[in-house]
Amino acid sequence: MATQGQVITCKAAVAYEPNKPLVIEDVQVAPPQAGEVRIKILYTALCHTDAYTWSGKDPEGLFPCILGHEAAGIVESVGEGVTGVQAGDHVIPCYQAECRECKFCKSGKTNLCGKVRSATGVGIMMNDRKSRFSVNGKPIYHFMGTSTFSQYTVVHDVSVAKIDPTAPLDKVCLLGCGVPTGLGAVWNTAKVEPGSNVAIFGLGTVGLAVAEGAKTAGASRIIGIDIDSKKYETAKKFGVNEFVNPKDHDKPIQEVIVDLTDGGVDYSFECIGNVSVMRAALECCHKGWGTSVIVGVAASGQEISTRPFQLVTGRVWKGTAFGGFKSRTQVPWLVEKYMNKEIKVDEYITHNLTLGEINKAFDLLHEGTCLRCVLDTSK
Amino acid sequence: MATQGQVITCKAAVAYEPNKPLVIEDVQVAPPQAGEVRIKILYTALCHTDAYTWSGKDPEGLFPCILGHEAAGIVESVGEGVTGVQAGDHVIPCYQAECRECKFCKSGKTNLCGKVRSATGVGIMMNDRKSRFSVNGKPIYHFMGTSTFSQYTVVHDVSVAKIDPTAPLDKVCLLGCGVPTGLGAVWNTAKVEPGSNVAIFGLGTVGLAVAEGAKTAGASRIIGIDIDSKKYETAKKFGVNEFVNPKDHDKPIQEVIVDLTDGGVDYSFECIGNVSVMRAALECCHKGWGTSVIVGVAASGQEISTRPFQLVTGRVWKGTAFGGFKSRTQVPWLVEKYMNKEIKVDEYITHNLTLGEINKAFDLLHEGTCLRCVLDTSK
Repeated sequence: MATQGQVITCKAAVAYEPNKPLVIEDVQVAPPQAGEVRIKILYTALCHTDAYTWSGKDPEGLFPCILGHEAAGIVESVGEGVTGVQAGDHVIPCYQAECRECKFCKSGKTNLCGKVRSATGVGIMMNDRKSRFSVNGKPIYHFMGTSTFSQYTVVHDVSVAKIDPTAPLDKVCLLGCGVPTGLGAVWNTAKVEPGSNVAIFGLGTVGLAVAEGAKTAGASRIIGIDIDSKKYETAKKFGVNEFVNPKDHDKPIQEVIVDLTDGGVDYSFECIGNVSVMRAALECCHKGWGTSVIVGVAASGQEISTRPFQLVTGRVWKGTAFGGFKSRTQVPWLVEKYMNKEIKVDEYITHNLTLGEINKAFDLLHEGTCLRCVLDTSK
Repeated sequence: MATQGQVITCKAAVAYEPNKPLVIEDVQVAPPQAGEVRIKILYTALCHTDAYTWSGKDPEGLFPCILGHEAAGIVESVGEGVTGVQAGDHVIPCYQAECRECKFCKSGKTNLCGKVRSATGVGIMMNDRKSRFSVNGKPIYHFMGTSTFSQYTVVHDVSVAKIDPTAPLDKVCLLGCGVPTGLGAVWNTAKVEPGSNVAIFGLGTVGLAVAEGAKTAGASRIIGIDIDSKKYETAKKFGVNEFVNPKDHDKPIQEVIVDLTDGGVDYSFECIGNVSVMRAALECCHKGWGTSVIVGVAASGQEISTRPFQLVTGRVWKGTAFGGFKSRTQVPWLVEKYMNKEIKVDEYITHNLTLGEINKAFDLLHEGTCLRCVLDTSK
């Protein structure tokens, strides 16, 4: 293959500074080293975590960097020792790795593989503690171990899920973050049972995926809560069958939900990243057994709080990352479920743009009508 | 029986005002009404919850009242419709009722029966919303539905556990609160598995019962944490095999425990009622799966807090009340376990006094050397 072992120069959206427009730039992408995979990214979506780091509010955000972590592509080449994938494989990069060897992977209790975290957390690769991206010799940081806002990226082999090559990459790219996070919060973290009452705070992509997860789990009442009542129409398609807008009530939203459900819901999900809402989500749970799952990512430094009485009287407070899915093992399984029409994906895609239009895509992300915007990275 | 249907005048320790010595007084105890049981209390222990309400810090505390909730006695008479127990039965009054009929009892998910809570929470009986205690015609409030600092008390029938009549009441009275709370926190709420690492904050009676529960559950490392290093010697007998005094370290205690355990413990238990310690207990848990159980009761109005990241990265925050035990069903089972020498009880009793010495007993409760003080109510 002509590019194998060579530096590839391609287009990428570089975030040089917080809160300044991304710059479409020719970047040099070094060949994969041992244990690494270089992927030609064909489609990437945008997620609020990209926007959060880009905004500069993330104290761990490093600049300049290439953001992006919800994408799909084809393996261009692999580094020494890589056996899990080979050139030509269709893949989804996974910000949550799965090495199957570390304490976390072996525990059987969590999907939070720790193998490459010391590198991905600081924007570099494990092998030489350096970046594979540069512009005119100046290194550009990786982001979340994925950096998918680029025509080519390099990731660790433990961060690549090989998927069905017949799956449409412009759709299944969404299985890299938001949709699995919502589904898994219900299936893996909360383990919602048939007949349960569920409250979902925030009806964005993740909240809607929670609704779909709850519906497939057999939940009876699926209450969507959002300050934008227009979201109810779309949410119905994903399983939400009741809607509450906190702005329509004088009482705290937790009291509204408790009254509506004869004591509270069996399960609640916070899909916004707002610590006050996280508290409300816990406190709207039923005494004795209600379980609240934090799915949204709060801004750095913010804290959740409640009276301990809430827990002593039987409520459980949990959280989830990537919905508890083991990425390399279960992302391909999610792709199969999509191919078998068992889970929605297309329905989350409200906009299609190109990599060159990425700044417009970020603007869309903050509008209520956009769920997911998929970028064609070839343009 | 001579007393059946009659008002009984007997000795009780009345708390007339917060933080003032209890007064040993002749009180009138009315006969049990429908669904009620009058019990001759033979032995009662003191628990920190009694001291908390007595101190006046409990905003829901009502005065004058008769405190006490960890006791054992013999049924003197029963009211109309009571079938579960009869005069002469040996019983333990249970502050946590179990009606087997309400939404909570039927759920199979919690022990927090709601049947009589609306009465026990405000110091009265359900049937006529009045107290059965009076002094010269002036009513005295009940406490926690038990009021065991009295030679006779009246409780709801759903709050009485009938036990093996051969069990020593001066010992098994402890199975009314602290010991089951600790054991159940491990067995029912946390469900500790063999080989687990456990951290216990606070080595009083409840903390020691957690240790014993963890030992019988097969935990390997049982780390006791207390600001009084003298407590380690006693704690060893209950299963604690490592000890940390936070005062011996400059770092926050959660960091000390994380370092000591290669990333944190599998399970932690807060047995003090201090919201800062509750946070430390959560944060000393292992990423990915660590579960922290709040067992201690915090002062009113105080709140717990942490970064949501702690939960998103896999820690679980729970609480327990009466260790999750279903009182009428499981207290008799705990008595059996004690009779079969499968659980300790005697070892928690460090002092024996009389009801007349109750103020001295409260003083002892605040001393480090006292675990449980059992009062003989006949004197």
